[in-house]
Amino acid sequence: MPSERYNRGWEKLKEVDGEAGEKVLASLEDIAPDLGRFTIEFPFGDIYTRPDLDLRSREIAVVAALTALGNAAPQLRVHIHAALNVGVTRKEVVEIITMMAVYAGFPAALNGMAAAKEVFAERDKKGLS
Amino acid sequence: MPSERYNRGWEKLKEVDGEAGEKVLASLEDIAPDLGRFTIEFPFGDIYTRPDLDLRSREIAVVAALTALGNAAPQLRVHIHAALNVGVTRKEVVEIITMMAVYAGFPAALNGMAAAKEVFAERDKKGLS
Amino acid sequence: MPSERYNRGWEKLKEVDGEAGEKVLASLEDIAPDLGRFTIEFPFGDIYTRPDLDLRSREIAVVAALTALGNAAPQLRVHIHAALNVGVTRKEVVEIITMMAVYAGFPAALNGMAAAKEVFAERDKKGLS
Amino acid sequence: MPSERYNRGWEKLKEVDGEAGEKVLASLEDIAPDLGRFTIEFPFGDIYTRPDLDLRSREIAVVAALTALGNAAPQLRVHIHAALNVGVTRKEVVEIITMMAVYAGFPAALNGMAAAKEVFAERDKKGLS
Amino acid sequence: MPSERYNRGWEKLKEVDGEAGEKVLASLEDIAPDLGRFTIEFPFGDIYTRPDLDLRSREIAVVAALTALGNAAPQLRVHIHAALNVGVTRKEVVEIITMMAVYAGFPAALNGMAAAKEVFAERDKKGLS
Amino acid sequence: MPSERYNRGWEKLKEVDGEAGEKVLASLEDIAPDLGRFTIEFPFGDIYTRPDLDLRSREIAVVAALTALGNAAPQLRVHIHAALNVGVTRKEVVEIITMMAVYAGFPAALNGMAAAKEVFAERDKKGLS
Repeated sequence: MPSERYNRGWEKLKEVDGEAGEKVLASLEDIAPDLGRFTIEFPFGDIYTRPDLDLRSREIAVVAALTALGNAAPQLRVHIHAALNVGVTRKEVVEIITMMAVYAGFPAALNGMAAAKEVFAERDKKGLS
Repeated sequence: MPSERYNRGWEKLKEVDGEAGEKVLASLEDIAPDLGRFTIEFPFGDIYTRPDLDLRSREIAVVAALTALGNAAPQLRVHIHAALNVGVTRKEVVEIITMMAVYAGFPAALNGMAAAKEVFAERDKKGLS
Repeated sequence: MPSERYNRGWEKLKEVDGEAGEKVLASLEDIAPDLGRFTIEFPFGDIYTRPDLDLRSREIAVVAALTALGNAAPQLRVHIHAALNVGVTRKEVVEIITMMAVYAGFPAALNGMAAAKEVFAERDKKGLS
Repeated sequence: MPSERYNRGWEKLKEVDGEAGEKVLASLEDIAPDLGRFTIEFPFGDIYTRPDLDLRSREIAVVAALTALGNAAPQLRVHIHAALNVGVTRKEVVEIITMMAVYAGFPAALNGMAAAKEVFAERDKKGLS
Repeated sequence: MPSERYNRGWEKLKEVDGEAGEKVLASLEDIAPDLGRFTIEFPFGDIYTRPDLDLRSREIAVVAALTALGNAAPQLRVHIHAALNVGVTRKEVVEIITMMAVYAGFPAALNGMAAAKEVFAERDKKGLS
Repeated sequence: MPSERYNRGWEKLKEVDGEAGEKVLASLEDIAPDLGRFTIEFPFGDIYTRPDLDLRSREIAVVAALTALGNAAPQLRVHIHAALNVGVTRKEVVEIITMMAVYAGFPAALNGMAAAKEVFAERDKKGLS
């Protein structure tokens, strides 16, 4: 039986990441279902549900961090979707990524922007903000 | 004569980073004054003054990114000061850093928290928020 | 009341990390007790207690990863202690770190070896393996 | 004439990496044959042949390190093959990669798992463990 | 009206990066034109035009840094082109990348060499050095 | 008996790194003498002695790479010494590090400059260039 953390995390994952998050979990089912379960329980069940920081600020933090790290393009795309889902505007996403040129270098910002471009195009097709 | 970008950046640097930012510049004066000038002109004159993202969101992004990168402790401390200077609460700083355990691992979060602890202690002594 | 995961994690933490792990948690108590709790519940309560990999192999993996990342010296020291606590020999620790010269470069290996040197000296004083 | 280190390394490379390692060397032949030679002589001729750590432990270390670094997918795939070739089980590979969520973050673990998934599928086709 | 820095940077960008640099800028036009502008003004207008280091040395530095970082393949390819455009030979590019095996590990060097291989093939088709 | 590669590497190490390199080796003697031997044989015996790139260009590459990686301060200091030993000027060292603000972000450049400042001060005391 799923834990209470799992149920709480699953609801939050659907709210924040939407379809993109569910795909990640589906891809883990046959190889590492427990990593999928941990992904729901810890980040979403334990962390995202905490009241100490609003969802908008959380996604600003994650888009910035993944752009700066520069080695997690699939997760950056998921979180650009998530940022837009919780009310960050496209203009703000562009500004966060641009700003990473200062803290992680222009290559990190340019590659982050390429991820944003893909996400925006995908959302245009679906009529999403 | 300082450029308009320099003057604009210098005002913004004082607003955001306060004393901590000025110390960084002073340390560059005898070895690389132009890197100091670029630090004022590009990040502060060009980027921080743009209206597309509020200062609070900018500092959330920077604290997250530097915690995740994990190799820039002095700059992380400057930006924890900056975040607190522009209205991010200590509780929110703690939450941003905690969250990086998910995206960059527990060591990154633990080391980020050690930086926050130093900054909070320094501000306690000065009676700052 | 501590969760079952917390209790299970706390027992495992004491077994693996010993005193070094407890110090990490103590340092978090006044600033981010929840990050401390997560550190016990998720890595130790959820992961280390899984039967799919023996403790010796787990610590080989962690010493290698932290040496390669090269930006988490305090955690690397904790896990060199942990590796020795669960039966990895000093000679093996030296070999794991040496090997990282191949995968992450000589600077990473040299800095990892400096961490090992500190840990070995500390354990010599206490008469530990 | 190949050095003794080269011959010793070449034998070890075939034992550990199999076909995947040979492909890497073939791809270097027309552009940087000396980098290919160094790859055989130093990692394999000098390091892997040392008696101080068994091959199973070596590959656990390398899979962990490359998953954590997160910027070397082709080499991670080669070493997941290598780990399986020297007796690490698929379940253990999955556990090593899962564990990196703790030390390098969930994105690193998720991308490592995607590499494992590709390798397992390739080996299924060939009837390998 | 473009700034003097922009004009100076644009001339330098064409000299150094040629077509590859112009494509980067074109890709930014509809999503983040200001990041494009900053890319011209700061790296090229401010930095590359400084007399303190010759262009050849600058490109040696950039090819080395991007190979070592290992998470910016598109930018590494642009700068391998740039290095060859300003007089670094193919043999020297191969040597710089090989050398990164020492400082950032063999995976970084192998992935850098794969980038060089692509660039050399592209230039062969165009009859470039 | 030391190998021919060792002897050749030892001569090159003394030429390039001087006293700073010898200290690194001394620190390894009681814990990992073989890592010390590999450091002489592979980077210095195999790589630095190759005629395909002059020493000045090699050290420009290494200073750039270690500044960009940002997690190897002791080695960066050794190689700033080395760069100055083989004819790179202080002004050029400052310029290489400044330039890394573009490729790895301002924090990397600022921390690299702090390393340069230490090295220059140490050399001033000894009357070195």
